[in-house]
Amino acid sequence: MFIKNTWYVAAWDQEVSADGLFSRTITGVPVLMYRDGAGRLVALEDRCCHRGAPLSVGRREGDCVRCMYHGLKFDPSGACVEAPAQARIPPQARVRTFPVVERHRWIWIWMGDPERADPALIPDTQWLDHPDWRSLDGYIHYDVNYLLIADNLLDFSHLPFVHPTTLGGSEDYASVSPKVDRLPDGVRITRWTLNTEAPAFAKKVREWPGLVDRWNIYNFTLPGILLMDSGMAPAGDGAQEGNRAGAIEFRGCQALTPETETSTHYFFAHPHNFSIERPEVTASIHQSVVDAFDEDRDIITAQQRSLSLAPDFKMVPLSIDAALSQFRWVVARRIEEEQQAAGASGVRPAQAVA
Amino acid sequence: MFIKNTWYVAAWDQEVSADGLFSRTITGVPVLMYRDGAGRLVALEDRCCHRGAPLSVGRREGDCVRCMYHGLKFDPSGACVEAPAQARIPPQARVRTFPVVERHRWIWIWMGDPERADPALIPDTQWLDHPDWRSLDGYIHYDVNYLLIADNLLDFSHLPFVHPTTLGGSEDYASVSPKVDRLPDGVRITRWTLNTEAPAFAKKVREWPGLVDRWNIYNFTLPGILLMDSGMAPAGDGAQEGNRAGAIEFRGCQALTPETETSTHYFFAHPHNFSIERPEVTASIHQSVVDAFDEDRDIITAQQRSLSLAPDFKMVPLSIDAALSQFRWVVARRIEEEQQAAGASGVRPAQAVA
Amino acid sequence: MFIKNTWYVAAWDQEVSADGLFSRTITGVPVLMYRDGAGRLVALEDRCCHRGAPLSVGRREGDCVRCMYHGLKFDPSGACVEAPAQARIPPQARVRTFPVVERHRWIWIWMGDPERADPALIPDTQWLDHPDWRSLDGYIHYDVNYLLIADNLLDFSHLPFVHPTTLGGSEDYASVSPKVDRLPDGVRITRWTLNTEAPAFAKKVREWPGLVDRWNIYNFTLPGILLMDSGMAPAGDGAQEGNRAGAIEFRGCQALTPETETSTHYFFAHPHNFSIERPEVTASIHQSVVDAFDEDRDIITAQQRSLSLAPDFKMVPLSIDAALSQFRWVVARRIEEEQQAAGASGVRPAQAVA
Repeated sequence: MFIKNTWYVAAWDQEVSADGLFSRTITGVPVLMYRDGAGRLVALEDRCCHRGAPLSVGRREGDCVRCMYHGLKFDPSGACVEAPAQARIPPQARVRTFPVVERHRWIWIWMGDPERADPALIPDTQWLDHPDWRSLDGYIHYDVNYLLIADNLLDFSHLPFVHPTTLGGSEDYASVSPKVDRLPDGVRITRWTLNTEAPAFAKKVREWPGLVDRWNIYNFTLPGILLMDSGMAPAGDGAQEGNRAGAIEFRGCQALTPETETSTHYFFAHPHNFSIERPEVTASIHQSVVDAFDEDRDIITAQQRSLSLAPDFKMVPLSIDAALSQFRWVVARRIEEEQQAAGASGVRPAQAVA
Repeated sequence: MFIKNTWYVAAWDQEVSADGLFSRTITGVPVLMYRDGAGRLVALEDRCCHRGAPLSVGRREGDCVRCMYHGLKFDPSGACVEAPAQARIPPQARVRTFPVVERHRWIWIWMGDPERADPALIPDTQWLDHPDWRSLDGYIHYDVNYLLIADNLLDFSHLPFVHPTTLGGSEDYASVSPKVDRLPDGVRITRWTLNTEAPAFAKKVREWPGLVDRWNIYNFTLPGILLMDSGMAPAGDGAQEGNRAGAIEFRGCQALTPETETSTHYFFAHPHNFSIERPEVTASIHQSVVDAFDEDRDIITAQQRSLSLAPDFKMVPLSIDAALSQFRWVVARRIEEEQQAAGASGVRPAQAVA
Repeated sequence: MFIKNTWYVAAWDQEVSADGLFSRTITGVPVLMYRDGAGRLVALEDRCCHRGAPLSVGRREGDCVRCMYHGLKFDPSGACVEAPAQARIPPQARVRTFPVVERHRWIWIWMGDPERADPALIPDTQWLDHPDWRSLDGYIHYDVNYLLIADNLLDFSHLPFVHPTTLGGSEDYASVSPKVDRLPDGVRITRWTLNTEAPAFAKKVREWPGLVDRWNIYNFTLPGILLMDSGMAPAGDGAQEGNRAGAIEFRGCQALTPETETSTHYFFAHPHNFSIERPEVTASIHQSVVDAFDEDRDIITAQQRSLSLAPDFKMVPLSIDAALSQFRWVVARRIEEEQQAAGASGVRPAQAVA
């Protein structure tokens, strides 16, 4: 059960090459993506309407794609425009298309009602291709439900335990509660840690004279988009009041896209605005994030296995769960609204993963 | 859900050796096949009636087979004739037997009511062991429902797309609609293509002065038996009127036998009546067929995976599907008849794979 | 469906080391076992009450274990005693504990009502650590329901067929019916075979002047504990009347513990009271048992596969099944009693594996 009327990240732009056929399952639906001769994106359901063969094992022909089972050819609108040995092509011979928008390196897709696919709703990730910022493209495939990853991104308390040598810093760090603000479609987390030690990854890229003031401020919004303003400045320099001279800054961009109920695409990058002429710094930052996310994946995958053995398990909520509980509530409410709008009376509201 | 009262091909004769135990699952039922001292076939359910151990991991003893768990011995009638440490053998201690007939290299089995197992109903495949014809034994295991393979065998339109360099020939070839005749238990396909280019495999075995007249005439009948008269002759020599001098001819024999709902045994051979003194020609023909069937298996397996993700998928029927739709209708009707005859009121009619 | 109020063998004592975390699933429940500073056993549900992460990938801290997802720390009573960034620990923040008793090398666990966990109910396996006896530790993991293994341990008729060169001896051996006595919680098997040939494994460890008198006397009791007095003495020396001079004796200890409905832990040892100063004799005896049990596992696993394909299969009971039928009846009755005691009206009685 997934939210339909929302923009999901479907791919990094370079994953869909100029002349290839790229298939990825999004919210349980296999989607074929390719580019027409002008480079514009096309997204079709990756399943021929005739006998169900995947179009992604078919063949590009101009701006069209031909199913290589019986030769039906589909244009970018999803219409079948050629059917060998067939006198008349029936009008229902078409495959579903999906609105797609390419913006700042990410390809966004709308799996719901195309009428409602307003590109203005796409979150701003300008740092992914802004000339003053640098990052590398990140992608991890998870064999877990996306909400377990959302949980992970919405609590700080796991940092010193899951990431002791990467993101975590000292264990004291976990004792500072973040400020949690509700947003209409998610949560805003604000966290300032003053006079603390710089974490391992920051020491790799800069010498610090002493302690630092450190911040993480991020919105985590539907369907699973995390946009973070984070960084650190020498302690006492007034970063919290707006002075970011001497700071190192990041604009983390992360997106969770459900593949199926038990698997997830995780897109991420960690743009930084310092040392941008040094590719090895960008690579080092990226690797630090990848290392930390691999740690997350290990524990979350263990958690998913454990939960799958105990379908009746009831989590004991703690106050550290305020943010993730708020986000799960927003997700559940949105799914319920969509079901009601669909007139799906009798359909029970979406249930979050226990 | 399979047709019961019909002859299925269970094996090539040489698969069941003189003294071995051969096990194969047919329509979901594990069957043990072996030969008695006179070489006659025995087919027993491959599951001891006592505690369910497979007899095929047991031991031949004369014309009997002994279960190597607790030592029960069964004779070719399925009766338990020895049970160690057991004073009296209860009459219900027997395993099911199946009528089997060995004919023209194929072993046919009847999974339904033995009373109705009339060998006269077995299709004629005399070319498999006729001295004037040559072929090699073919077998492919598919991880798909058998009806998806039946579909494939009942349309020509896929030939130029799935088999461009093997069976397909030019793409024009797909634009000629075959003649489809209904049979009581299947479909008859007749297709003459005049003045066309000889396909790749034919060029491997003979030089052709120019274009050819090509024919494929086959019956595809329950439960999934394809018997084909095909070949080609120099264009204009009058092959369509009966003159087959100068022709090369084939009598393709193919049989689909469901293993389970999602897997299928595919037996085939492609006897030819020319160059029969040259084994390399027979090998080349066989390899061409195997290559083409491997192409079919690739696309059909992709199709099955795609369909399994979309249980509600509705195929859009095209006119090229006339033959396969007819065959699916015959299958569904036969299963329904068997259910009604079994007095299975309340059991819903068989549903073809969407 | 498993019996809850009974002692199961959870592990060999050395599997739970002084400072490690050992996880094993018992009757479908993942259990974490470890030792406190005094070496006493602790058994906790291996699933953090907070978000379900397995505690076994956590960290020992003194006598406690810390979940390495969010840092909750649990003491040996299962109570959460620390939760970082959490002002107050809610009283329901605890994980389930299980009574465990370490006795004669085996760790016994009680998965039911802790109030009823009386250590006096634990069967006596003193030979596992008695100075006059020697054995090696045995463990096999089975991918079958535990009742199929119980069946195997309760019939002699399979010995000459499954174990012709290991335990079986001559095939005549199977024709002697054991005496079967009902016990309140199981079965007692008594079998004397006089004037028979010593089996292969016995010949490996001693020269025998001629035939032997051989006995196997064992109790097989709930939940799946086999304690055997077996051995052999020179024929005619009066072993059956109590004279065991010149005999070689064993006290086999075996325990079946369900892991899931389709997998089982099998603990075993075969203590002997002769040649105890010769480790190679102990090793040889152990290897003989392991070889025989591997033979059992092969046939039982084949049986499980066969049965899983035929959910409606009805076994044909034979008189050789008297003991195993009695044991299955005891199991079914006990599960039914537990269900009735739980007031689980409407819950159907446990069904043995067909």
